[in-house]
Formats: sequence, C-alpha cells, structure tokens
Amino acid sequence: MRMSANKVKRSKIRAIFISHLHGDHVFGLPGLLTSMSLSGHKGLIEVFGPPGIKGFIEDTLSYTQSQLGFQVQFHELNPLGLTEVFTSKHLSVYAFPLKHRIPTCGYLFKELPKLRGLRKDKIEQYNIPVDKILEIKSGADFHLQNGEVISNEFLTIDPSKPVSFAYCTDTVFDPEIISFINSVDLLYHEATFCNDMQSLAEERFHSTAQDAARIAHLAGVGKLVIGHFSSRYKDLEIFEEEARQVFENTDLAIEGRLFEIKS
Amino acid sequence: MRMSANKVKRSKIRAIFISHLHGDHVFGLPGLLTSMSLSGHKGLIEVFGPPGIKGFIEDTLSYTQSQLGFQVQFHELNPLGLTEVFTSKHLSVYAFPLKHRIPTCGYLFKELPKLRGLRKDKIEQYNIPVDKILEIKSGADFHLQNGEVISNEFLTIDPSKPVSFAYCTDTVFDPEIISFINSVDLLYHEATFCNDMQSLAEERFHSTAQDAARIAHLAGVGKLVIGHFSSRYKDLEIFEEEARQVFENTDLAIEGRLFEIKS
Repeated sequence: MRMSANKVKRSKIRAIFISHLHGDHVFGLPGLLTSMSLSGHKGLIEVFGPPGIKGFIEDTLSYTQSQLGFQVQFHELNPLGLTEVFTSKHLSVYAFPLKHRIPTCGYLFKELPKLRGLRKDKIEQYNIPVDKILEIKSGADFHLQNGEVISNEFLTIDPSKPVSFAYCTDTVFDPEIISFINSVDLLYHEATFCNDMQSLAEERFHSTAQDAARIAHLAGVGKLVIGHFSSRYKDLEIFEEEARQVFENTDLAIEGRLFEIKS
Repeated sequence: MRMSANKVKRSKIRAIFISHLHGDHVFGLPGLLTSMSLSGHKGLIEVFGPPGIKGFIEDTLSYTQSQLGFQVQFHELNPLGLTEVFTSKHLSVYAFPLKHRIPTCGYLFKELPKLRGLRKDKIEQYNIPVDKILEIKSGADFHLQNGEVISNEFLTIDPSKPVSFAYCTDTVFDPEIISFINSVDLLYHEATFCNDMQSLAEERFHSTAQDAARIAHLAGVGKLVIGHFSSRYKDLEIFEEEARQVFENTDLAIEGRLFEIKS
C-alpha cells in the first residue's frame, strides 16, 4: 500500500532483498507477493535473505492457501564477506554480513559501467552502419573503406559514471563493513537511537545517528540517509543534528521522500 | 499503522476476531501483536478465528523470533450455528458460519442490557444510600422506613437500548445467515463485485452489492455498510447505487469513515 501511495510500480520488481527476519522487515512481504499475484504479475521474482526466509514465506502462503501466479526463487544467504548474489543488465548486487541480534545482511547495489554515448552528428557524417554501433559504444574505432581510422573519441562521449548504493539495517556500529561500502554514492544506514541512548543501542545491536555518521565518514560515502528511528523520539530533528556533527551530508529517510543517487 | 492514523487505541484491545485465513484478513495480525508488545501492552489478548489461526501466528512469531510481552489465548472456531464465543461486562460475541472458499466465521456483537439510569433528584429527595443503588439500577423499588414503597419508575429512567453489530466477510450470498443477524442495528457485509460480475461473485464465493443489500433487507437490519470492493472498480459509487436500489440505508466502508451504531 505504501508503494502504491508513492507510485512505485510493483510490476517492475524482479528481485527483493531482505536484511533479516525481524517482523518489521518481513511482515509486509507475503502481502506484497500476493497482491502482485492478484495484479497479474507473471515474471520470476527472486527473493534474497538470511536462512529462514523461504520457510517463512512458504508457510505463510500455505496457512493462507495463497497460490502465486508466478514463480518465486529463494536465495538463502550467509555471506562471510562481500558476495555477489545477483546480476542483471544494469547492476550487480552484493550481500555482506551485518552485526545484529540475528543473522542480517547488508546489500551493495553497483550499477555496471555503461556503454559510451554516440555523437549522432559524427555517426551520420561517416555513415556508420547499424551493425557497428555496439562495438563503437563499447569503445572501438571505426575503419573507413579508404583505410582511414576514425578514433572512438571523435564518435562518442563519456557515459555517465555508474552509481552505487549500500543498504545497512539493522546493525550495531561495525567498522568491519567499511571496506564493503567504501565510497558508495549513497549509504542508507540505520539510526535507531540518538546519543542519549548510546548504551541501549549497543545492547540491542542498533546504531545511533552518530554511529551511522561515523561509518559514512570512515567509508567516504557521497551521501548518508538515516532511518529506522525509534518511536520514542517524537521529534526527528535531533537525529539529523547529531549525525551532521559528524557527517554533514546526511538526510532523514522520511516516508515518501525520494533520493536521487548521484555520482 | 491504519489504527494509529485513525486514532484507534491499540491499548484498549482485549479480543481480536478473525473471519478467515486469507492473506488480506490476517497478514496484518503479526504486526499488530508485535507492535502492541513494543508499546508495552500487558493484558491478555484473546484471538478468535478458524482452525489454523494459532499455528499461523505462532509460526510467524517463531520465524521472526518475536517475543510478545503479553499472553495470547487462541480460540479456534468451527461454529455450526450461532455460538457464543466471548463475553465481557458490556457485550457478548457470537460466531456463525459463512460460506466462502475456506472455513470462514461471521461475528455478531450484542451489547448486553444496560442498568437503568438514575434520576438524581429523586435519589437525593429520598436519601437513598449508596448500597441500594445497584439494585435500584437493576429495577428494584425502594422501601422507606415508614413502610412506604417508592416504585422504581419514579427513581429511574429507561437505559439506552442495547445495540448490535454483525460482521459478514467474506461470503457468497447466503440466506442461511439471516436468522443469525436478524434485526441487527448495523450490518457490515462484503460486496466485492457489482451486478456486472454476478457470476464471477458466485464462482469465487463472494457477494455483489445487491447480494449484500438483499441480506440486509431480508434480515431487517437498521443500516448496511458494504466493503471489500474489488480493485477493478475505480469508481465506488456504483456499489452504493446498486445496493440502495434494494436497501436504501446503505453506506460504503471507506477507510477512516466512522459509523455510530444506533438502535
């Protein structure tokens, strides 16, 4: 329902990445899958998550006698380090371990390098045939029939830089993840508590806003977005204030807010 | 989250009545229970529903390693007729069978007869002691020391009439429920389809708006509220129009709308 309200098209979903099996991270999944089925979704859906995710979904669907109109492929993950788990035409996804009370995965989404952009005027000027376009986009020079070579740099422009995004929730402050998420363009990191609850954060294997900001700083990320705020805080400004003392480019993950990932 | 948004206090919940184990009727329950626990709820919660409700909740809580801070008592129901399943100081709740694709319960909520209202001026005039109040509220006369009897009708006024509410979802058109819900003040009855889908309604064991209205008419209810509309209808007015052709006092169950149950 939140996806609908925020105009996120469920029909575009191919893969779902679950961090861990606590209720606030998986209770919505059976409803998402069954409502996708009701909407007539047909393509394969791949679901990634810690061991138990398959049983949880299958048992839930079984109790509720739900038949999905599409196939679901489960991948139960237990990554020891950065592990590639999914790849498509446009991106690769890696899982890595987080430190929480139960097995938990962080995820790194890396856009793949893009093909070079064509300079249309030059393509027309040299009458370059369609069957040569892909290799020129991949960086090849073009050979004229008279033997002259047109260097790729005259035919193409640099593509936009691939972007990257890391998703780290739920986790205690854990510098071991820094090498996995180094220099990502956008880091989402949980921040359940503020400085006043530092010891409770450690005890519950959660982070404070400044814990998240320290990770962002140490990993040299482009931008930090924090979320998963404890409901005991009525005013969320304190999260932003405390995080920005450590890492200036921080924003709050407020429901419905849209973040563009920029390199 | 919907309850929060509509200012329904979760802390007041004592019992939960589940119609059947299809996902759109139970997927929210684990989240409701765990969030009540997180909010510090302590009292016993009784959960009523068809067989399987206990296993579904217990397995879901187990997969997600959720510990509730309160006790949950499950009552798996398989009513053959109108069966009293719960009673409190103010009301009795009855379950009865509905006809759907899987075992499904309808529920009837009947307020208990109330004590008579006191006429404060008369209570003062005759100096009636506190320990006599309950029996006077229950209908007793009052005996003065001089032997004079003050009739109850001088001391009290009629209480408001107990109200009743029936909840019937999901179900195909089923006249067998009429005796169970006869003359209720408010009937909620599902209306998944309109007249254009009458045969699909029967095939899927759902009702049309006019099916619901026919039940309301035959049972002589005070007011009908219909809901559970198929998402294929973008405009809901047609449900209201078609139902009102059969039963005038019909309203749509739109999210957040409040209905007062009046006798």
